[in-house]
Amino acid sequence: VTDDRLAAVGELSALARILPRLPGSPGTLLGPGDDAAVLAAPDGRVVLTTDVMVEGPDFRREWSTPHDIGFKAAATNLADIAAMGARPTGLLVALTAPPDLAVAVLEGIADGFADACAALAPGCAVVGGDLTMSPTLTVAVTAVGSLDDAQPVRRSGARAGDVVAYAGSLGRAGAALRLLFAADGTEAVAALRRERPDLLDEQLAPRPPLAAGPAAAAAGATAMLDVSDGLLLDASRIARASGVVLDLDGTALDHDVRAVAQALGVTDEIARSVVLTAGEDHGLLACFPDGAALPAPFRIVGAVVAGTPAVLVDGVPPAETAGGWDSFAPRRD
Amino acid sequence: VTDDRLAAVGELSALARILPRLPGSPGTLLGPGDDAAVLAAPDGRVVLTTDVMVEGPDFRREWSTPHDIGFKAAATNLADIAAMGARPTGLLVALTAPPDLAVAVLEGIADGFADACAALAPGCAVVGGDLTMSPTLTVAVTAVGSLDDAQPVRRSGARAGDVVAYAGSLGRAGAALRLLFAADGTEAVAALRRERPDLLDEQLAPRPPLAAGPAAAAAGATAMLDVSDGLLLDASRIARASGVVLDLDGTALDHDVRAVAQALGVTDEIARSVVLTAGEDHGLLACFPDGAALPAPFRIVGAVVAGTPAVLVDGVPPAETAGGWDSFAPRRD
Repeated sequence: VTDDRLAAVGELSALARILPRLPGSPGTLLGPGDDAAVLAAPDGRVVLTTDVMVEGPDFRREWSTPHDIGFKAAATNLADIAAMGARPTGLLVALTAPPDLAVAVLEGIADGFADACAALAPGCAVVGGDLTMSPTLTVAVTAVGSLDDAQPVRRSGARAGDVVAYAGSLGRAGAALRLLFAADGTEAVAALRRERPDLLDEQLAPRPPLAAGPAAAAAGATAMLDVSDGLLLDASRIARASGVVLDLDGTALDHDVRAVAQALGVTDEIARSVVLTAGEDHGLLACFPDGAALPAPFRIVGAVVAGTPAVLVDGVPPAETAGGWDSFAPRRD
Repeated sequence: VTDDRLAAVGELSALARILPRLPGSPGTLLGPGDDAAVLAAPDGRVVLTTDVMVEGPDFRREWSTPHDIGFKAAATNLADIAAMGARPTGLLVALTAPPDLAVAVLEGIADGFADACAALAPGCAVVGGDLTMSPTLTVAVTAVGSLDDAQPVRRSGARAGDVVAYAGSLGRAGAALRLLFAADGTEAVAALRRERPDLLDEQLAPRPPLAAGPAAAAAGATAMLDVSDGLLLDASRIARASGVVLDLDGTALDHDVRAVAQALGVTDEIARSVVLTAGEDHGLLACFPDGAALPAPFRIVGAVVAGTPAVLVDGVPPAETAGGWDSFAPRRD
């Protein structure tokens, strides 16, 4: 039995195993291996975002395969690029890992990055990275994108009269998380993954329809973000930034509510709360001028109206508090 | 006494205190606050690098002030951009922090980033970031740069007949590290910082002459990198990538050797070993065609000659092994 721990294999040999698994692209003018990479920025601008996933708060190896960890770290960052209306062109991946971690785990994470790029943002390359020793396994990702001559779609452009639309699933990632928290032990988690792979993937390796981001920009979207912290909270961010009310249509969410109710075996009321507040969906919430041709798979979920910034459901404040995620403290948002 | 711990202050309030401390720039077309930032890439390309600093292996709060931590995290990443011959234009900073960390520490780190940009790369902005809970304090930085129509200076372009030149200090960062390791307790470290602030800064808050990077590209540099892992090891990277021998001139290093010998109270022989192998200098090592006008503060430290890739000192293999840093294992490079 060979010793596959990072401490035994060494940084350079580990990198030699990881780098060939990562995707390149024609826009990668200079890939990994020098002090820095060079990436094409065809319209003279570059879209940039960074996000870290930490073992414990953000993922658990009891739940996620290494492939899941890489896939989700890529997906969440690619979603932030798409939410600006941009096309992802590159990722940089900084891993911190304990010395006793198996290099095979890092290979699995790398494969997750490769598959996420292929599935969610074809043509996006991993152009750089870093591997450092740490007691804590973390995956820090920077994603880079191109607007291809479009204007960035911010959160602040929604106007009364716009429609509110969403592309992706809602609540299913949250439902999967509830099932994972309820699963008692490795066996139960394995059974869950075997029996409900698609639902679990919504949480552990999400596949939001990110091509809809640039399509939304082209279709005239006035505001957009990806739903990471829950529909109500993220909608309230657009409402506040734009100075408008987002009035969501409860019936437009019925399909999501029923799917969550069925998945969890709970009442529609509880399921609706999951759909509205659970987050980690990473689909795209956008506003469009009324009458705009919505690109697939956007569906109308509400309307923008004038008023003191707020989110309503069917014209009234929802019973649910916005919920959402503060890494450090109870919500103050 | 108010409770300044992150867990008490909360992520959003912490960010509200940190963000105003960070520098902007005219090239920042859209700064922090949306899903992603937008940065100008004037020549249609962007230079990208990422590097993580982890508390413990990479820095210690017993040695480094929060300002030092931010300053060094910025400096090392800015150096990687400059080493391509590029001008740093933006940084993204992903912090992971324990919940009991004081927000004042994060403010200090932010000030370090701001001051490093002002001192080493004026016009470079912090365009994005992330703040996540973790048991381990880490600072993951992605740096972005512009080549301004120049070609990137890689490691592979050195040719026999070139001169080898260096811009920056050598061995002083390593000397400071030795003193820090030898200092017994907080009092001794404080005394060291009081008595030898300039020397300590070379390790804890380095100020490599990074404007020399783009100047070297303009002067026709054929190969370049920043010396992070020791002069011998980093020189060997140019030698191997370029397929040449780098023959260093021992007398050209005498000034550095004497400075280290004096700082540490050691023999010239020991000091020379520090100069050749200690690393973390983050100055720029470059090769230029013979007769090129070297931009300040580059000084000639050797010559490129034909032969099986190697680094020599005064024509012979140095007694020192290359040394250098593998985060996980004894050197295999």
